[in-house]
Amino acid sequence: MTEPQEPSLAQAGKIMLVGIGPGSVEHMTQRARDAIAEADVVIGYVTYIKLVADLLEGKEIIRKSMTEELDRAISALEAAESGKKVALISSGDAGVYGMAGPTYEVLFQAGWTPDHAVQVEIIPGASAINSCASRVGAPLTHDFCSISLSDLLTPWPTIARRLDAVAYADFVVALYNPKSGRRTRQIVEAQRLFLRHRRPDTPVAIVKSAYRRRERIEFTTLDHMAEADIGMLSTVLIGNSNTFVRHGLMVTPRGYANKYDLEEGGSTLAGEKAGRSLSTGLLGWLETLQADYAAGASLAQLAAQHRLPEAYIQATLDEPLEPAAADAAEEAEA
Amino acid sequence: MTEPQEPSLAQAGKIMLVGIGPGSVEHMTQRARDAIAEADVVIGYVTYIKLVADLLEGKEIIRKSMTEELDRAISALEAAESGKKVALISSGDAGVYGMAGPTYEVLFQAGWTPDHAVQVEIIPGASAINSCASRVGAPLTHDFCSISLSDLLTPWPTIARRLDAVAYADFVVALYNPKSGRRTRQIVEAQRLFLRHRRPDTPVAIVKSAYRRRERIEFTTLDHMAEADIGMLSTVLIGNSNTFVRHGLMVTPRGYANKYDLEEGGSTLAGEKAGRSLSTGLLGWLETLQADYAAGASLAQLAAQHRLPEAYIQATLDEPLEPAAADAAEEAEA
Repeated sequence: MTEPQEPSLAQAGKIMLVGIGPGSVEHMTQRARDAIAEADVVIGYVTYIKLVADLLEGKEIIRKSMTEELDRAISALEAAESGKKVALISSGDAGVYGMAGPTYEVLFQAGWTPDHAVQVEIIPGASAINSCASRVGAPLTHDFCSISLSDLLTPWPTIARRLDAVAYADFVVALYNPKSGRRTRQIVEAQRLFLRHRRPDTPVAIVKSAYRRRERIEFTTLDHMAEADIGMLSTVLIGNSNTFVRHGLMVTPRGYANKYDLEEGGSTLAGEKAGRSLSTGLLGWLETLQADYAAGASLAQLAAQHRLPEAYIQATLDEPLEPAAADAAEEAEA
Repeated sequence: MTEPQEPSLAQAGKIMLVGIGPGSVEHMTQRARDAIAEADVVIGYVTYIKLVADLLEGKEIIRKSMTEELDRAISALEAAESGKKVALISSGDAGVYGMAGPTYEVLFQAGWTPDHAVQVEIIPGASAINSCASRVGAPLTHDFCSISLSDLLTPWPTIARRLDAVAYADFVVALYNPKSGRRTRQIVEAQRLFLRHRRPDTPVAIVKSAYRRRERIEFTTLDHMAEADIGMLSTVLIGNSNTFVRHGLMVTPRGYANKYDLEEGGSTLAGEKAGRSLSTGLLGWLETLQADYAAGASLAQLAAQHRLPEAYIQATLDEPLEPAAADAAEEAEA
């Protein structure tokens, strides 16, 4: 490490981890463009380098293959230590299955700390999940997960456990790296796990190269997902139990209990009030739980009814209802 | 709906759902800036309107409160039907707990279809999860989930089931809307559910107003999460079992089995080969499973060993190993 007063500090380089978004220049942030503009060296996977080719005149370019993530980070550190400004580019967001993680792994192994002369900046961008979602409608309006089906660094049982858990808990799910020429059975196994918990007609969208020249969008359903045309550049979006496709748009409603009635005289389901949510919230639920338990319901019955672990039901029953319920009512009137 | 040849079509408006990113203008995309520039009307929550105040000169501004999401969409449709271009702004990404969902709900209820004169464009941006992650290090390098703790439209058992599932399946998790003046117990319940499956010292980062003037970042651990200073503008990031904090940076390694050795002579754990992943992938796992089953292991034993449902183990055993394994080996050599 150099001392602050040494001249080498003035020449200290910088690593900028740039998320370029989906790949079209207009969907990059200003900071991402500026970072590439001020870089002496641009390092990235060949495909990403091509996407920003218009911004690279006069720069040193280091192209790496898909698997050389650590090499990219090592090259970035070497260039930065020689005083250069380096833009290490990722498609989407640099933090989501991108270069931010491998770069910190390499930096830490090399003894780097934030006090080191080489500075690091991460520049966020719209991730593939955001870009793909915006092209198919509004599938991410409720809770969602992102799972990579690449089993190169992650044991399959870990991936399978995740697929099973989020299928059960009714998340909207984005599958990254769903399939390649060699990895063809992962998507079949993902479908198998999802069908244990989800309806066969659950909407699925397959988005390839969002916002790029060869963009392709295909809608299908869970029971046909594994037969669809899925490749390395595809992101697979699986809806939750409320997601629907209408007029070629995939939309997930915001909540589970929201049945709004926008026009007077419109129909509401029995038991619903127009313009009101049916959710009673946590406090309302805790009150009901206490009452049902006092009325003789067993822990096992309550656990089965709410599809939650008995131990969790027990723990919430053990805790007194906080006075927050009363406060909330007052606050609402204020 | 107007006929194509009627003059009103020439004046047909447009709704642009703009994700403005974290809130600083330099982290907006060019397309987001252009959309606001070409808009006649800008509609949004008061706080978001303030964030883009510099871009709004000469425009009609409609400010709405936090809860008036459907009102915002209705106002947008009305303005667009009168021929105006409308920018409906969301912080982060317009699709993630943003205005894209409510807008399509309103449009569909009003009988809108994609053939309608009013056009709709969704402009993706870096979501809060991406922006917050980029400020704390690289926590999202592996599979992650986003869960809102707001129980206004979602029953608590649904939220609790999700928290329990993703805590068990070891996701990195971002909690949106973790707490407000009135909703204080949700974060306590989230902590309770996570502690059923995760170590008390699991790293947690609380990020408030990323990239804005009052940005604040706090690191804590799962067992102290509920005591931390968390508010309406906070995003809570909970690491997975491999996430660590070093030198004030929160980093999640890319895989579970990756122990790379970057320098010759560096140390590797017993049984590992330098530069190689320990994951055998799906096909390797299936082979082991078949072998163990043939050697007499019961379904229950295999299910317990791999922490997967018996029915899933059974289903994979029923399916023959595809010739893909052999193909893959050939392909690798080609």
